[in-house]
Amino acid sequence: MVPTITWQDDYVVMIDQRKLPFKESYVVCKTPAQVVSAISKMVIRGAPAIGVAAAMGLSLGASRIKSQNRSTFERQFLRICQQMARARPTASNLFWAIQSMQEVLKQHPKAGVAELKDLLRKKADELLAADQAINRAIGLNGQIVIPDGATVLTHCNAGALATAGYGTALGVVRAACEAGKKIQVLADETRPFLQGSRLTAWELQQDNIPVTLITDSMAGYLMSKGRVQLIVVGADRVAANGDVANKIGTYSLAVLAKENKVPFYVAAPLSTVDLSVPTGEEIPIEERDPKEVTHSLGKAIAPTGVAAWNPAFDVTPNRFIKGIITEKGIAREPYKKTLRAMKEENA
Amino acid sequence: MVPTITWQDDYVVMIDQRKLPFKESYVVCKTPAQVVSAISKMVIRGAPAIGVAAAMGLSLGASRIKSQNRSTFERQFLRICQQMARARPTASNLFWAIQSMQEVLKQHPKAGVAELKDLLRKKADELLAADQAINRAIGLNGQIVIPDGATVLTHCNAGALATAGYGTALGVVRAACEAGKKIQVLADETRPFLQGSRLTAWELQQDNIPVTLITDSMAGYLMSKGRVQLIVVGADRVAANGDVANKIGTYSLAVLAKENKVPFYVAAPLSTVDLSVPTGEEIPIEERDPKEVTHSLGKAIAPTGVAAWNPAFDVTPNRFIKGIITEKGIAREPYKKTLRAMKEENA
Repeated sequence: MVPTITWQDDYVVMIDQRKLPFKESYVVCKTPAQVVSAISKMVIRGAPAIGVAAAMGLSLGASRIKSQNRSTFERQFLRICQQMARARPTASNLFWAIQSMQEVLKQHPKAGVAELKDLLRKKADELLAADQAINRAIGLNGQIVIPDGATVLTHCNAGALATAGYGTALGVVRAACEAGKKIQVLADETRPFLQGSRLTAWELQQDNIPVTLITDSMAGYLMSKGRVQLIVVGADRVAANGDVANKIGTYSLAVLAKENKVPFYVAAPLSTVDLSVPTGEEIPIEERDPKEVTHSLGKAIAPTGVAAWNPAFDVTPNRFIKGIITEKGIAREPYKKTLRAMKEENA
Repeated sequence: MVPTITWQDDYVVMIDQRKLPFKESYVVCKTPAQVVSAISKMVIRGAPAIGVAAAMGLSLGASRIKSQNRSTFERQFLRICQQMARARPTASNLFWAIQSMQEVLKQHPKAGVAELKDLLRKKADELLAADQAINRAIGLNGQIVIPDGATVLTHCNAGALATAGYGTALGVVRAACEAGKKIQVLADETRPFLQGSRLTAWELQQDNIPVTLITDSMAGYLMSKGRVQLIVVGADRVAANGDVANKIGTYSLAVLAKENKVPFYVAAPLSTVDLSVPTGEEIPIEERDPKEVTHSLGKAIAPTGVAAWNPAFDVTPNRFIKGIITEKGIAREPYKKTLRAMKEENA
């Protein structure tokens, strides 16, 4: 599996997820502004991957600061952090990663600029490595809920490409396969950006995990026909009460899952849980360019001039969620209590 | 508005709905086999339009029969009917139209071949004209349920292009506009064939009815945000108990509508109601080429070799449906009784 994001000397290199699976090309970011742009244009996407990219982008930015004066360095670094925070609004990992990087400065009040640059690079490397380990843990914790022989439905791509590797929702799928379970995946294509048909289908194909593609509109019907045993999706932000912001369409799946008694799970690292946001109502939902809806892979699918709406995420209320699979175990109702306990254990 | 289907001398001419809205081209059918092919390849689609096309195709077929012997004529005509019946399996209007045409023969046991050809042409013309009148009646009956100022969500295309003109679900929308109501339409794009983005958006644009395009996955979220006041869709077949087969994704909308207390209506002529089918369970659901899912407008959207599933319709159980709008009025629960009464009144 190609890495989602990596260092090449001190450049940040990402596989261009807008082009997959048709073209395996790479975007080389030589400045933090290029990382911001790569995140906002979805060269890289998926909450955990966005977090890692932001950390690496900040380290890159720090390394480019010329001043040897600590307070000048801090001021310039803060400005880069502010630019990074505007890359995308919904994924909480972005803000978590920025905060983690800023804490390096607080933790080393006496360090000089050169030392801080080293420490920030070390922190970014740590977050990159930790993300892969966290996904392995999510996989192990989550795979127990997947019955042998199950058809598992997923939405968007919460796989290796959405993370530093292995994946969250697809990490659970991978761990179930590694545990010897014979399962198959139903992948929603996930319009408008087609993360399901382009990325999830491709990732699973590479790993020889059986995958069948459907349009987003088919999931409910398949549930009603008993063709789905479990749903697992990722998350872009989890509120303190367990409401989950995730790719547009997730809410619909969750409602349909409840109607059809299909267990609906969310898999996400604790870095995606934002205790500062009490409920899903307060999570900002990004609206993207309507052109993503009037077009598909750059080709017009609607008459010229038609209006379109393009919310990138929706919010699934906690009552539809059977469990939130994290690196510390599966959080269950009451989420307000269980999520806080896991976060505190984590801190 | 361009006609969906028309005679040109004694050829059947259809606007090619696979090419809209990008190209306004026409398919000229000179044989009944070409009409069968046009239906199965979705040059023309939508249950009422399929019914009209079948009737016209049978008249065309009858006119091509060379024998002057009535029983030879009947045998050959029956064979054409059998071919026509295999064009698509779900829309009940196809079978209803074939039966209507066959009844012409039964009603005129003494007629010669030349007279039968005239009678069949007359019957096809009647069905074509009747469909437009029926849609106007559906519109008038249905528009009363649409509140002034409402945002009306629709799926697929149940418009002029799905009928001989005016439309069923979009007929209701048009009638509401003609009644002076200020409404706007949210159109699901309706993957995989994109009837919403290509046909519904185009039709409404032509009529200056405000329309906003969304992906199929966005409808549930918009309902949860109070942005949808009413849903109206068409139908491919309505069972005796009011279960409705319609474009894949309809069931999901209906479940989400119930969850969010949005009234969900179906608009269809009584020719779509099939009393011989007790419940939706018995309605045959067409599965189409997986390539429609792995591609969008002919362009690959998934890696080569990935499996896909492509059910063209789903079944919405009657408990999710607030009313079925027909040319005789709005059928309400218990549908088994109300639909039968309307059909008998119609007969």
